[in-house]
Amino acid sequence: MNSQETLKPKFFGKITASVSHEMQNVLAIIKESAGLMEDLLMMAERQGGDITPERLFSCLATIKKQVTRGTEITSSLNSFAHTADHETETTDIIEITTRLLILTDRLARNAGMEMAIAPCHEALKLKTDPLQIQACLHLAMECLFTCLNPGTIVTFKFNGREGLLSEIEITASNKENPVDDIRDRLSSSSMFTNLTDALEKINTTASPLTSGLLLTFKK
Amino acid sequence: MNSQETLKPKFFGKITASVSHEMQNVLAIIKESAGLMEDLLMMAERQGGDITPERLFSCLATIKKQVTRGTEITSSLNSFAHTADHETETTDIIEITTRLLILTDRLARNAGMEMAIAPCHEALKLKTDPLQIQACLHLAMECLFTCLNPGTIVTFKFNGREGLLSEIEITASNKENPVDDIRDRLSSSSMFTNLTDALEKINTTASPLTSGLLLTFKK
Repeated sequence: MNSQETLKPKFFGKITASVSHEMQNVLAIIKESAGLMEDLLMMAERQGGDITPERLFSCLATIKKQVTRGTEITSSLNSFAHTADHETETTDIIEITTRLLILTDRLARNAGMEMAIAPCHEALKLKTDPLQIQACLHLAMECLFTCLNPGTIVTFKFNGREGLLSEIEITASNKENPVDDIRDRLSSSSMFTNLTDALEKINTTASPLTSGLLLTFKK
Repeated sequence: MNSQETLKPKFFGKITASVSHEMQNVLAIIKESAGLMEDLLMMAERQGGDITPERLFSCLATIKKQVTRGTEITSSLNSFAHTADHETETTDIIEITTRLLILTDRLARNAGMEMAIAPCHEALKLKTDPLQIQACLHLAMECLFTCLNPGTIVTFKFNGREGLLSEIEITASNKENPVDDIRDRLSSSSMFTNLTDALEKINTTASPLTSGLLLTFKK
């Protein structure tokens, strides 16, 4: 099998592995807090003393915070998993990118990067293969991650007309530790070649910019 | 794209969607228990009375039970996700099937089925595409689910020699509501054709049995 045939399963594997790892962290923190509460209650029982509810409330607050975080991650994973149901679908690009950034948050953090979406005043749609476009956006991130220095903010900006997506600009910003030659680094990277091959399947091109990448969606 | 090209992403989507749904349930129960504990503590504070620790301990037991369940599911999902990393690997068939049954537990329950693995006295290995074999095992389950009546126990039995897998028998048992013509039902089903096509890619054949299915792994 060539790299294009294995792109989707490998992308799915990468996202799911990262998210399940994040979920294990969520559960570990909940377990720790529940254990601490149990210790506090048992101590109070043994000593016959009063329970100071403050510490119990603080453990419960930690548990609830992790439940919220876990629910955001698992509901994103659920919506993401359902994008494999159809090979062509009219997708809301801001919605799928927002979800992808939640799901890849850990991967970005590990690379020392921060991801952002520029404000967009209208919903932009695109009729495409939803898993392929997400795999391409993820490849684009990975391409940039290998070229950029830690501490970079990578911003997605969507351009379109009459509700239809025409371009995505993915630009890097790092005041303290900038890279001057993103264009050169991208052009000579094998990952960039993988990206252009993957984009070709959804009729899209990638051009390196001084500050990042431009994806152009053909009509 | 034909159904064979989309098999892996769709399989991945189905497993991940089901598991993330299960995780949402785990988190919902934890949230409910944490909320109940908060109510109990606040009630005790307002009334200036003692806290009866029994109810708090019982909530903590529920939380810990869900953490254990959630950890089993997410660690299975994590190992499963990593099977997409390699296209060929020497896999332990009992290990991957055990994990697949954990991950598809909700799907089996929804179909009213119970899954089991027959005791096997040695580890049986197979050098294959790990994601493809798992997708095939899942397809085999789905094939049987459509043919069988609720309440059926579906058992996987592994045969092999010198540590190498040669056959998997997947048999159905339902004393109250048996199906007499599994062989006929399977032979005429389009899902069974999908299964044989998918198995062909890993040099394996499927034969309908009176009581289920036999997968034969060629050397």
